[in-house]
Amino acid sequence: MKHMALRPLEAPIRVAEIICVGTELLLGDIINTNAAYLSQQMASLGIAVYHQSVIGDHPDRLKAALDDAFSGRGRPAADLVILSGGLGPTYDDLTKETVSNYFGREMFLHEPSLEAIKVYFEKTGRTMSESNIKQAMMPEGAVILPNAFGTAPGVAVGDDLHTAILLPGPPFELKPMFETSVIPLIHPFCESVLISKNIHIIGLGESDVEAKLKDLMVTSINPTIAPYCGNGEVRLRVTAKAESRESAEKMCDELISRVYDSPVGDYIYGIDIPSPEAALISQLKELGLTLATAESCTGGMMGQRLTGVSGASAVFLGGFMTYQNDVKVKLVGVDPQTIQEVTEVSAEVAEQMAEGTRKALGCDVALSATGYAGPGGGTEKNPVGTVYIGIATPSATTSLRLYYRNKSRNYIREAVASRAFVAALEAVKNM
Amino acid sequence: MKHMALRPLEAPIRVAEIICVGTELLLGDIINTNAAYLSQQMASLGIAVYHQSVIGDHPDRLKAALDDAFSGRGRPAADLVILSGGLGPTYDDLTKETVSNYFGREMFLHEPSLEAIKVYFEKTGRTMSESNIKQAMMPEGAVILPNAFGTAPGVAVGDDLHTAILLPGPPFELKPMFETSVIPLIHPFCESVLISKNIHIIGLGESDVEAKLKDLMVTSINPTIAPYCGNGEVRLRVTAKAESRESAEKMCDELISRVYDSPVGDYIYGIDIPSPEAALISQLKELGLTLATAESCTGGMMGQRLTGVSGASAVFLGGFMTYQNDVKVKLVGVDPQTIQEVTEVSAEVAEQMAEGTRKALGCDVALSATGYAGPGGGTEKNPVGTVYIGIATPSATTSLRLYYRNKSRNYIREAVASRAFVAALEAVKNM
Repeated sequence: MKHMALRPLEAPIRVAEIICVGTELLLGDIINTNAAYLSQQMASLGIAVYHQSVIGDHPDRLKAALDDAFSGRGRPAADLVILSGGLGPTYDDLTKETVSNYFGREMFLHEPSLEAIKVYFEKTGRTMSESNIKQAMMPEGAVILPNAFGTAPGVAVGDDLHTAILLPGPPFELKPMFETSVIPLIHPFCESVLISKNIHIIGLGESDVEAKLKDLMVTSINPTIAPYCGNGEVRLRVTAKAESRESAEKMCDELISRVYDSPVGDYIYGIDIPSPEAALISQLKELGLTLATAESCTGGMMGQRLTGVSGASAVFLGGFMTYQNDVKVKLVGVDPQTIQEVTEVSAEVAEQMAEGTRKALGCDVALSATGYAGPGGGTEKNPVGTVYIGIATPSATTSLRLYYRNKSRNYIREAVASRAFVAALEAVKNM
Repeated sequence: MKHMALRPLEAPIRVAEIICVGTELLLGDIINTNAAYLSQQMASLGIAVYHQSVIGDHPDRLKAALDDAFSGRGRPAADLVILSGGLGPTYDDLTKETVSNYFGREMFLHEPSLEAIKVYFEKTGRTMSESNIKQAMMPEGAVILPNAFGTAPGVAVGDDLHTAILLPGPPFELKPMFETSVIPLIHPFCESVLISKNIHIIGLGESDVEAKLKDLMVTSINPTIAPYCGNGEVRLRVTAKAESRESAEKMCDELISRVYDSPVGDYIYGIDIPSPEAALISQLKELGLTLATAESCTGGMMGQRLTGVSGASAVFLGGFMTYQNDVKVKLVGVDPQTIQEVTEVSAEVAEQMAEGTRKALGCDVALSATGYAGPGGGTEKNPVGTVYIGIATPSATTSLRLYYRNKSRNYIREAVASRAFVAALEAVKNM
């Protein structure tokens, strides 16, 4: 038994493939978030991914997938294959055995892993079963990656030109293992650095952004610039590849300043913001202002997203879910007369909700949303997809009418929350 | 140009593969929800999926992927390949051209599709660009699938034994197209019916469920029984394959009644429930009861999930996001003395929050949650992961202490909300 380094330093890792193993993926019972996470990590290490695949726990199919990945098949051959799943204790978990066999390695009982599994069971107050011993069996010469959140250790194994890294399937085990153990392991073999920065735009659709930036987008090769949309915002991802982090960063920054100078510039609300709610929380924290919400159609989504941001407690006091009209009247003082005259889906009611929340909680800024998120509801004047948001600050109360055509209830609610956060961000900047 | 049926009825569809096309998937910029959705649909049509893959917009790689799928490669050959993505108007969208070429078909301008695209642009108030004409070019002999939510029509094309179905990448276009056009198209070629039913269990972990049901799980071949966990519940999926829907249903029901008779039976809270919140809403609706929430650590998530259920407005009045302590005091009448004595993370405060909410809104049932969802916070007595939920009904107020070890903030919050919904469900059943 020999413990050896992963591969010679002269053999760089340029191309990787992702193979996810699991029947539950093939049945569509779970969504493959691991493939996206691993691909993103590869991109940021400057490693190209041309292929992802999902297969069942089946040795022959796994072997064929490894062959295809390492030999290339209409695509560049992989230097590295990352596998997730199939490291469990049961008889149908075969990934480790198959990969070990693929590289012609014997398996041995890795005592430190067995010890760690025992400790894990003790810590979580459960009894270790015989079958868990299988999880401590390792291919000879492998690098073992400890699992802080589960029983299956990860494994890196291969030969001078081919490296396979095996990770457990559950994302909450895979991600910390990747960050703690995999990055340090493969970093020395990465030749270039890929840096991405995100330009966050709100108030323009994806096609508007593309039309306004067409020339810049077509001519930008390195850095590249690509639009993504979601949660009611458009994100432009600027990605530069360079030999050092510093020069990649500089390349990104130069392109970003060109976007700021373009007709899109006015709609940019931030760079590299994890989310609109995080941008709002951080701005309010800086200004020492507090926030509360009154939510009808979003039903608590704004609060939920705000309280998902670390540090929210310094800013977010709480608020009201005023789903029904008499609750709007009772809790945030909406005038029933207004509801009767202009309905609850109106600028007036949105503004009264925001103002009433400021009064009730004594916060600096209050946000409200009332509308028809669908699928039911809507009037001729305000069809399904119409939502009013209200923003009350110490200096003014305003509202915004939003309209989303042909979108799902969930899409509309997410977009409304995002738009409200950015509207509040702008309001406090102009306060 | 001939328009022909998809394939002869004598050629059943038994095996399908999913190929998703898109650089944004390979970069990990978006999560591949289409693969899960399409696989799930295949499963319910009784069609087996042994392989999913993701590739870039690249003709040679797509051709190799089609070859592998239709010829099988360590796996059963596919009768049907479903592709998503690459149907857009730009030069790098190549799926349709490549597949057309693969089956040796010429492309022609499909006038009805062009007309539909023009109408779509008019309806959404935008201007059609020259490049969209490309989206109306179709392989000869293809079946065209209209797109109600975008510009790219879907396409079904192939020969007597191989069928390729091309769908647009955006899920909100792909899903309705699948349900409206693809299912009727392929249904005649499906031989068997797969029916799944879900047994919903709360209050037991996945490993407890497995331990208690081990014999039944190992011996069940058809129907199969498989556990999944998420959102704080364990779901047992029972899947039967049969020639008719009726006999598959009967097979499922028989296995389900055996699970009811097992030691797991007491923890079942429903069969085929879309979610705990849907179960609660439907039960309360039936009883004519109203509901409100007071949320500290969940910050609005309960309200958001409840208002995501269609029909929630008959039951859910609204509620309070009492994120900070003085808001708990002000809005739902928590006694500041209690907070000082036992902290806000306590059974007492959870119960006061629920009772205060009932009083403030005059609802029948009130739910509350207060706890340390992490990553910060926690005490020796109540470490991170400790959450108290309160349930107030006309007959009693109770609370429940939950503890989640080593879980993320989001996991804990989702699980707490689910647990609270099921606790309320039980409380009203015993009322």
